[in-house]
Amino acid sequence: MTAPQNPLLNDRDVEFLLYEVLDAPRLCALPYFADHARETFDLYLQSCRRLAREVLFPTYKPVDESPPRFEGGGVTVHPALKQVFRPLVELGMLTATRPAAVGGQQLPLVVATLAGAYLMAANLSACGYLGLTTGAAHLIETFGDDALKAAFMTRMYAGEWTGTMALTEPQAGSSLADVQTRAATTEAGHYLVRGSKIFISGGDHDLTENIVHLTLARIEGAPQGIKGVSLFAVPKRRPERGQLVPNDVEVAGVIHKIGWRGLPSLAMSFGERGDCHGYLVGSPHQGIAYMFQMMNEARIMVGVNAAATASAAYQEALGYALVRPQGRRLGAKDPQAPQVPIIEHADVRRMLLRQKAIVEGSLALVATTAMYADLADHAADAEARERAQRLLDLLTPIAKTFPAEKGFESNALAVQVHGGYGYSSEYLPEAWLRDQKLNSIHEGTTGIQGLDLLGRKAVAGGGAALMALGGEIQRTIGRAHRAGVEPAWGERLGAAMTLVGEVTAHLAEAGMRGDVERMLRHSADYMELACTVVVAWQWLAMAAAAREGLAAGASPAGFYEGKLCAAQYWFSTELPRAPALAALCRSGEDSYARMRPEWF
Amino acid sequence: MTAPQNPLLNDRDVEFLLYEVLDAPRLCALPYFADHARETFDLYLQSCRRLAREVLFPTYKPVDESPPRFEGGGVTVHPALKQVFRPLVELGMLTATRPAAVGGQQLPLVVATLAGAYLMAANLSACGYLGLTTGAAHLIETFGDDALKAAFMTRMYAGEWTGTMALTEPQAGSSLADVQTRAATTEAGHYLVRGSKIFISGGDHDLTENIVHLTLARIEGAPQGIKGVSLFAVPKRRPERGQLVPNDVEVAGVIHKIGWRGLPSLAMSFGERGDCHGYLVGSPHQGIAYMFQMMNEARIMVGVNAAATASAAYQEALGYALVRPQGRRLGAKDPQAPQVPIIEHADVRRMLLRQKAIVEGSLALVATTAMYADLADHAADAEARERAQRLLDLLTPIAKTFPAEKGFESNALAVQVHGGYGYSSEYLPEAWLRDQKLNSIHEGTTGIQGLDLLGRKAVAGGGAALMALGGEIQRTIGRAHRAGVEPAWGERLGAAMTLVGEVTAHLAEAGMRGDVERMLRHSADYMELACTVVVAWQWLAMAAAAREGLAAGASPAGFYEGKLCAAQYWFSTELPRAPALAALCRSGEDSYARMRPEWF
Repeated sequence: MTAPQNPLLNDRDVEFLLYEVLDAPRLCALPYFADHARETFDLYLQSCRRLAREVLFPTYKPVDESPPRFEGGGVTVHPALKQVFRPLVELGMLTATRPAAVGGQQLPLVVATLAGAYLMAANLSACGYLGLTTGAAHLIETFGDDALKAAFMTRMYAGEWTGTMALTEPQAGSSLADVQTRAATTEAGHYLVRGSKIFISGGDHDLTENIVHLTLARIEGAPQGIKGVSLFAVPKRRPERGQLVPNDVEVAGVIHKIGWRGLPSLAMSFGERGDCHGYLVGSPHQGIAYMFQMMNEARIMVGVNAAATASAAYQEALGYALVRPQGRRLGAKDPQAPQVPIIEHADVRRMLLRQKAIVEGSLALVATTAMYADLADHAADAEARERAQRLLDLLTPIAKTFPAEKGFESNALAVQVHGGYGYSSEYLPEAWLRDQKLNSIHEGTTGIQGLDLLGRKAVAGGGAALMALGGEIQRTIGRAHRAGVEPAWGERLGAAMTLVGEVTAHLAEAGMRGDVERMLRHSADYMELACTVVVAWQWLAMAAAAREGLAAGASPAGFYEGKLCAAQYWFSTELPRAPALAALCRSGEDSYARMRPEWF
Repeated sequence: MTAPQNPLLNDRDVEFLLYEVLDAPRLCALPYFADHARETFDLYLQSCRRLAREVLFPTYKPVDESPPRFEGGGVTVHPALKQVFRPLVELGMLTATRPAAVGGQQLPLVVATLAGAYLMAANLSACGYLGLTTGAAHLIETFGDDALKAAFMTRMYAGEWTGTMALTEPQAGSSLADVQTRAATTEAGHYLVRGSKIFISGGDHDLTENIVHLTLARIEGAPQGIKGVSLFAVPKRRPERGQLVPNDVEVAGVIHKIGWRGLPSLAMSFGERGDCHGYLVGSPHQGIAYMFQMMNEARIMVGVNAAATASAAYQEALGYALVRPQGRRLGAKDPQAPQVPIIEHADVRRMLLRQKAIVEGSLALVATTAMYADLADHAADAEARERAQRLLDLLTPIAKTFPAEKGFESNALAVQVHGGYGYSSEYLPEAWLRDQKLNSIHEGTTGIQGLDLLGRKAVAGGGAALMALGGEIQRTIGRAHRAGVEPAWGERLGAAMTLVGEVTAHLAEAGMRGDVERMLRHSADYMELACTVVVAWQWLAMAAAAREGLAAGASPAGFYEGKLCAAQYWFSTELPRAPALAALCRSGEDSYARMRPEWF
């Protein structure tokens, strides 16, 4: 009657993605990854898996139940976070993908992504500190000068200090053009920073002695709007004569988040006493461009978090459905027959298969996107790098949005499978449901991702990225055909991708006529269309690899059969939604364009 | 910058539904409602509205923050609930629709439903006690003998005691055939009840001196399965020689619910000391049939709760979007121009219009369903009553499910409109999101509603209810046509309803061939199809009434324009999903039928 321990992710699926679908070891032919092989990938995966299951996951519920406290001017986090922080650093999570020159392991992002998904599924807040730190350190690595690297980056990559993104301000929200934090030049070379930030994740805590805030601010006299925003490293304590002294960075308040309860989200004040030193990263007024490196990395990481959170809940629901007896099969007449596990009920199996389709589709999508990031940075020739970069740019908003939005639905289904128990905090699914909701909000809301996808990515370079995607999809269709996958699936995917191209061209035309409102009005529907088609592509790739596995007699056969069932589900249930979505985008349906505030 | 006070429901919309869409005062021509008129409806509405806004709503957040405590053998609820309980009783919420003979006001359910929605939107837990009590008392009113009515019903309708439904057991969940609670006959005429129940809402509290549990149990020697279950009234304290003495009903534990935090959900033991008296309601072995009266009422009430919960959040999001400045319109070049309220952004307006379409569609649906309940009980002739009963039976699972499922999506959008603030418990939308999740679970999960709709209601009497619905829809199409509504909407609705009929016939055929699994496999998709079409019908009726209002020069014109925008949204965005859903149901797509537990 007891469900098996939650594995968080299906190991066989991770192996399947890396070695059967994506053939990640082919990356080892590239110089950057030359020291690696399947064996080193597996070692890292195995370490992450073990730490996730044995150390992190047991801390999840206690941390969720005791959110951070703000007292005595500082934030205290759950003591369990201290126990897991060092092991995560020692695992190499901060530097797994970074070059050996900065202490890294030069592991492909695709491997780090899937390995990291175990850790996120086990305790996403704990991983949040490391994700933020590595992103912030990477900004300094890319754009900072040697002094900044020595002062900050090294300690951050070593896990001695953590990092944050300090972008959002109370009066501006998502509108970074309205950043008002000021930076005044000084003769000593540093800047004096003054302003208020909000929703600063990990903005204060008692895990490390120092925190470096990668902060957007305006240098005095800078242009208005987005073009006048610069990037600064603003430490909580600044190094001065070999010591760390307070840097006038204060916590103004804690936001009572409904999930991610181990990672404080703070309102913060910089320079209330006029003594907050900031150190310019790179050139003035380039802050937004720089920050996009971190934001794009963070967006993929949000997608991974979302996939991981959905996976943990799906595995929990699956374990529950296998052991919870209730009712009998349809048409069973004997009331004395024993009850069956609820997985025997068609609608429960539907809910589980839908979760599987979303979770494994999400993992495949973020892994594929991460692999393009590896190629964009390290492919052998410039053309291949450029092509991978285009695909990465195009897929980033999709890899952020699909796992967040459909993951939320998947998490809700995990609650539903648990019935009345799912509605209680004695069971875990409700906590993951709360966690998941953030992923459609932070690092650019779903609405913003839609504008980015349609307004920038899909039309950039005359649709070059979309054409590259079309090429990748054709390759997958070819592979599926050769593997003996149901031919209708490839045909339907090809047709849907053609639809996407046509809709994009149609909308781009409106944009070129100057009717940007008309072009972008249905960007949310366009995003949904793109997600549906791109995930169908992932399912076709998985179906192809599953057929190949079956043909090769690989085991277990049931695993491959399950993949084919989930692919069938996606092609029968989700992809058929594409034509209506495409028609909606093309139609320019104007209900919410016409709707006036006073009509609501 | 401050948002206006949340109105919970839009008064103009409620008025519109009652008087312009449904013409509820025509009910007053029926003898049961003869003492009523629009004026008495308005009086009751106004009292509910005022109590909801001024008394109930201020208690919502404090109650959410302090869930019930179980101590000293009993459950203590938030003291604010004591303050609101009597006013709710005095308002007449318990007996609004009941006959004068039992102290009721003989108000139409359609009026009580919309008036009650204000109260539920203000504090759904507080209303829960009353809904459960009136449902339980109504069971005794219908099926109990005079002694039971005198002993229990009278006090329950007076609000002196409350009532519960004690159906679910830990080992059986939704499977009522597996109820194991026992009832032993005694020479004194009462029964001795023994067993465990779980998820008993309002099972114990300190609001009233007594609680009557309407309990399913098996009389010794009863047949196995569903046909051996009887209904008992089991009080917490039983009347004995003019006194109330403990009746061996104990709280075994409190479930820590994630929402509905004012209404305890309990595990309970009956008769652990062998001294729990139960009083048979009606005849032996008829418990399930009787209980369905209460369950059907409760299902509609769940739909109202869901609509109300979505409405409160929608109104909150609307108020926020009107005052929260952020960013500028697309294409605005001047970074010094002031920021605009977020309602000016197309995607925010889309999220609000989608919420409006769901919320107002839900309210129209539950009001329409309630009106059929009024006619089923009180129409002038037997034929009209029978026809209304068929429509009521058919619409009940839909009126329960659509507001619960799409309401959850709508509640999530209200969080999303609030951005990062929406993710914090300083703001209300996250609490309503938690509340909403229960509505797809209790009183029959969404999966069970789908089986009920397709397996029973749609095919009952050779599809008589579906034909009656088709007739109602044709009448609405005619009205819309005469009112000058966009003709394509009526055509699309007619075509979609034809599809529903065809799909139903196709699936019923499989059932008649004995392939029940095949018939019911896509009952969830069938439910979604039915919801989409039935709500389109509601939006066509609202569009017709809006056109009539505009033609008559009624005001405000903007209200009607908003209705037409939301109707357009539904017809352009949601109804076009019907063909793919219908095709899916017909196709018999078998992915989750084939899927084996070990393949996941």
